[in-house]
Amino acid sequence: MGKIVNVILSGGVGSRLWPLSRKSKPKQYLPIFSGKSLFELAVDRNSRIAQEVLLVASESNLELANPALQGVSHRIVVESVPRNTAAAIAFAAFALEKDDVMLVTPSDHLVENQEDYKSAIEHGVKFAEKDNIVTFGIVPHYPETGYGYIEHEGNDVISFREKPNESTAKEFLQRKRFLWNSGIFCFKAGVFLEELERYSPAVFLAAKEAFQNSKEDIIDKELSLAIPSISVDYAVMEKSDRIKVVPAKFKWSDMGAFDSLYEHLKDNGHPTDENGNMVIGDTDKEIAFVGLKDTIVVSTDDALLVLDMNSAQKVKDLYESLQENNSDLIE
Amino acid sequence: MGKIVNVILSGGVGSRLWPLSRKSKPKQYLPIFSGKSLFELAVDRNSRIAQEVLLVASESNLELANPALQGVSHRIVVESVPRNTAAAIAFAAFALEKDDVMLVTPSDHLVENQEDYKSAIEHGVKFAEKDNIVTFGIVPHYPETGYGYIEHEGNDVISFREKPNESTAKEFLQRKRFLWNSGIFCFKAGVFLEELERYSPAVFLAAKEAFQNSKEDIIDKELSLAIPSISVDYAVMEKSDRIKVVPAKFKWSDMGAFDSLYEHLKDNGHPTDENGNMVIGDTDKEIAFVGLKDTIVVSTDDALLVLDMNSAQKVKDLYESLQENNSDLIE
Repeated sequence: MGKIVNVILSGGVGSRLWPLSRKSKPKQYLPIFSGKSLFELAVDRNSRIAQEVLLVASESNLELANPALQGVSHRIVVESVPRNTAAAIAFAAFALEKDDVMLVTPSDHLVENQEDYKSAIEHGVKFAEKDNIVTFGIVPHYPETGYGYIEHEGNDVISFREKPNESTAKEFLQRKRFLWNSGIFCFKAGVFLEELERYSPAVFLAAKEAFQNSKEDIIDKELSLAIPSISVDYAVMEKSDRIKVVPAKFKWSDMGAFDSLYEHLKDNGHPTDENGNMVIGDTDKEIAFVGLKDTIVVSTDDALLVLDMNSAQKVKDLYESLQENNSDLIE
Repeated sequence: MGKIVNVILSGGVGSRLWPLSRKSKPKQYLPIFSGKSLFELAVDRNSRIAQEVLLVASESNLELANPALQGVSHRIVVESVPRNTAAAIAFAAFALEKDDVMLVTPSDHLVENQEDYKSAIEHGVKFAEKDNIVTFGIVPHYPETGYGYIEHEGNDVISFREKPNESTAKEFLQRKRFLWNSGIFCFKAGVFLEELERYSPAVFLAAKEAFQNSKEDIIDKELSLAIPSISVDYAVMEKSDRIKVVPAKFKWSDMGAFDSLYEHLKDNGHPTDENGNMVIGDTDKEIAFVGLKDTIVVSTDDALLVLDMNSAQKVKDLYESLQENNSDLIE
């Protein structure tokens, strides 16, 4: 039996957490969870389950990732250009032995309840050892519209569903056979590559060639550009008939936007005023709200965001417009 | 015939413009109108009509007022404690000759259209010279609920009205016989004192004694405390039968709260984003709004106010709660 390897994916900026998150300081490296970053927490959480870490990251992330990896047995595969999750996981699979069990986790999600997490993962590892492609689904407790859903019967996947609208999310919650797609996966390296080759041969072949031409675990850039940029969900999960799902009850959030961060901080004692207004970030000024509720002020050295919590997803649009204008404020 | 004296009242902080306005920097001294303060603008505007200025102010205001008074013939009466407008105007009247025409103006209102202003005041001075108590009423162009109203027929006052609710304000606007009470007055010193003595003898007598015991135009403090603190409207205007009103069309605002300031700044080219959000004050940060409209961020060195424009009047409540907590932020 192979070892369990925690494959951590660390791409993306987390543009919906601007101005906290930047190109130079992506969301997963912000030390805002009782002084720790989501990346640190992910390494810590999974090192109690896996024997080693295989980080797939861009070069600009290496320095940020390094401190959390000290004292942890690890290897790093460097993506020269981002090619989405199917390719990133393929690189990891090529770097491992066929029988190694890959526990693939995002680095920018928050998990609470370590014991529930551990028992769900151990359950998943058993399916993975039987050559299944395993996904983890969180039992929803409210009708979130920002997550994808998995329809299931026990450990069998009936269908994957896109982010629903509000009425569909409510229906999903009522029908009790839908789980939030956590983006956490578990499978043997060899099984993943078999399924990738079967269902997305173009990704398989291009990723294989790019990986084989990597130098010191830095993937060749030119060959990377030839890899179709598609998600692992689309490339494998939604197609494979070896798919299993482990329903899990650990507390999980993708911390995708300020509404998630707000709820987390509030639950952990971060102050709000009597109308639910909150200040996030460093400021040397007294900040007062009048006539507003559920408004978040996010303060950094060079920028201040004033956000209605119900529009948390729209911060991405602001980020993109700053990007189009080549603004220093996203660097 | 006596001279025309511009009596400028400079009490009050302008708490609804916090954090711009402070005890140490009341609203009328903020240089935010193309670099000038409302006080400077008032002195400048009225010095084209009156021969001299008589400022009634608290001691803490003297230094702030001084620069604008350079080159203007002026005298200053210092209130040891604030005793409202009836007493402040009485002090000025006692300091002048009986036949001097007092043009009493607040120092914290904005007037535009100097020519219309001048012709309205000249019209008022004629009534004052015939021993009337003259008030100036602005022809309203929208149903403002933050101002008092004067019901009139020509130059005769039918009644004074408190700040109306919205439906009453709309009715006032439709009926076309209501004017905004501008707080600008004109009368001979002697006529004012006669009317004050008749209708509010307690104010008259106590103010007279306090004034007579002033030293170098600083009113005695102990004797000031004995003066009933009531407004000139209540003490004289609403009771006198020598009252006249001059309807006027100059552009006028009391700049009482951030909604007025917002409109003024916007009309003068101060930027807003596409949803009408505005930043007022000094900041070295980029400030962005998401999911909000008509929101004002007011930034100073030590405080930041995030305000929904429709709640501009409520800033006063915030100021008062800071005052109760002895906050440095209002000093």
